[in-house]
Amino acid sequence: MSETLTVNLAERSYPIHFHADIAPVVRPEVDALVAAGRKVVIVTDRNLARSQRDAVYAMFGEQPTLVLEPGEETKSLTELGRVLDFLAEQRVDRGGALFAAGGGVIGDLAGFAAASYLRGIAFYQVPTTLLSMVDSSVGGKTGINLKAGKNLVGAFHQPRGVFIGTRLLATLPPREFAAGMAEVIKTGLLGDADLFARLEKNPLTVDSPELAAVIRRCCALKAGVVEADEHETAKEGGRALLNLGHTFGHAIEQVTGYGAYLHGEAVAIGLAAAARLSLKLGHVDASVVTRVETVLAAHALPVKMRAPLPLGPLMAAMARDKKVRAGALRFVVLKSIGNAATQGGVDPALAEESFREVGAI
Amino acid sequence: MSETLTVNLAERSYPIHFHADIAPVVRPEVDALVAAGRKVVIVTDRNLARSQRDAVYAMFGEQPTLVLEPGEETKSLTELGRVLDFLAEQRVDRGGALFAAGGGVIGDLAGFAAASYLRGIAFYQVPTTLLSMVDSSVGGKTGINLKAGKNLVGAFHQPRGVFIGTRLLATLPPREFAAGMAEVIKTGLLGDADLFARLEKNPLTVDSPELAAVIRRCCALKAGVVEADEHETAKEGGRALLNLGHTFGHAIEQVTGYGAYLHGEAVAIGLAAAARLSLKLGHVDASVVTRVETVLAAHALPVKMRAPLPLGPLMAAMARDKKVRAGALRFVVLKSIGNAATQGGVDPALAEESFREVGAI
Repeated sequence: MSETLTVNLAERSYPIHFHADIAPVVRPEVDALVAAGRKVVIVTDRNLARSQRDAVYAMFGEQPTLVLEPGEETKSLTELGRVLDFLAEQRVDRGGALFAAGGGVIGDLAGFAAASYLRGIAFYQVPTTLLSMVDSSVGGKTGINLKAGKNLVGAFHQPRGVFIGTRLLATLPPREFAAGMAEVIKTGLLGDADLFARLEKNPLTVDSPELAAVIRRCCALKAGVVEADEHETAKEGGRALLNLGHTFGHAIEQVTGYGAYLHGEAVAIGLAAAARLSLKLGHVDASVVTRVETVLAAHALPVKMRAPLPLGPLMAAMARDKKVRAGALRFVVLKSIGNAATQGGVDPALAEESFREVGAI
Repeated sequence: MSETLTVNLAERSYPIHFHADIAPVVRPEVDALVAAGRKVVIVTDRNLARSQRDAVYAMFGEQPTLVLEPGEETKSLTELGRVLDFLAEQRVDRGGALFAAGGGVIGDLAGFAAASYLRGIAFYQVPTTLLSMVDSSVGGKTGINLKAGKNLVGAFHQPRGVFIGTRLLATLPPREFAAGMAEVIKTGLLGDADLFARLEKNPLTVDSPELAAVIRRCCALKAGVVEADEHETAKEGGRALLNLGHTFGHAIEQVTGYGAYLHGEAVAIGLAAAARLSLKLGHVDASVVTRVETVLAAHALPVKMRAPLPLGPLMAAMARDKKVRAGALRFVVLKSIGNAATQGGVDPALAEESFREVGAI
């Protein structure tokens, strides 16, 4: 498969290129920028620089490259300062371009640096994890974490192009692949019942022939949602739907300090909790909860906390979540498999019960 | 005088309120936000918190207030982190509002924090220096400095309202008032020959009855320029014109480490240098240089460096300036008093000569 999907955002529209071996697509873009006298710099992480050394060289050659440590801790103000200083040292001017090659951490951090440096320079993304391919490379959200919570600081900054090369997933650790599958499953749940059914029938692996098609389907669905609500200003539905499972998931990540669970693992537990909340609210029956948990488990994802977490801090973290409006608890709930909706004014007791059922005490 | 000027930027339009005593205009706005259940927090600096204690209390009462150190060093990534942590500690959500009360440093830093926190919350400005009243409170540029240069990082984030109270200037040190006059004189030079003539006839002081009218005129001119070129994307002219004197000025500030000269003082020397460059380019005759320098001096501003600065580092700093495009030197030049233009492809030797004439060696 070699094709392109366009994210339609008027003058901020951009292409997502899909190709098993993406280097032959990236390199001409880099060369064209350089030939036009524009400075090109790369931000990546140590894991990728090691495990995909040849691919990284094939994409970027000798362009100046900043290699950061992998891990969520890198999405900090301190590392943002490193990227910004790197851009200044490299004398990147307004015509410059920043390529981020890595997972969501690298994409979010480098994207925010590109959004802020000189109040905005061109940004290109080469996502190298399943999670970042299906999720963070579409939508233009960039940002960093504060001690108080994840993604509390950032900017909307659409990339000029995204390059998805499925062969880069060959060196992705299985646990990271599974974490990415949480967002794939989420996509099916919130808007693509066929995709969900396909995953139920045949769990997806890194070797599945339909891997690229599934990634493309996730990107297309997310692109459609983002096109309709670029800055998440819709009062109901809109981009908020993409947060299915995330209100619970973020609370788990925050209480565990982002160490115990990968983002996708926390989201998987969050999806189970969201399905249970939807059952309590009378939107779905118990069979839906079972189907959600079965698909998650079939993709090596947790549906319960590995160790019990205290309910108080979880609920407090959830109340701080930025999707909370005017103090009332607000969730994305399932209406059926493939159909989600936002719902405000949810009784906190139901959220507590859902949290307890996935392992909170 | 009590009136309002509207900056017309479609859905980002906002009012600038002018009033000698501004507290009675600010307070109802704060109270209305709080009454609507929106969190309101204040960022200010220690100088203002001391010298205008009663006025600050009259404006904001007991709203949570973060007091920062005055000075350019505060426009750093570290202090940005303090403001962001403050917002998170105060549990500011997307409906929250940040008021910045202070000079350009506080406005730029707090504005960037407001632009970035939760990817953007409402921002209001109470400029308390002449410089920030006429300059940084109009236009939506927010940002911080890097070691490599000033304002290298930031965002466009229009305020929801600006409140200009001339009585706040009573406690402004004379040197700061003079520094603000550099931007007033710049405004006359680039687009308001009448204003320039008025300043030639009668130097403006903090006690001048026409002070408020002059500030309003500067805001109106800048608003017009910003309305036509909000994101500084015009190829020629546009917002770049507001940088008259700033390419030279920024280089001086950078080489001296932002300590020796106030921004306005560096701009004053920069205006003298820009006038000299305009003479060398054949746009104006020598009498214009004399008039520019005479007005600057009449407002207690320098027209030459106090101590010689080395030409090499000055030119290097200028080449790094973000207004440089594709390596060629680009300046804002005077076509006449009241009329400026952007000009690319300037021979660096002419810029060097101009720099030498204002004291570089």
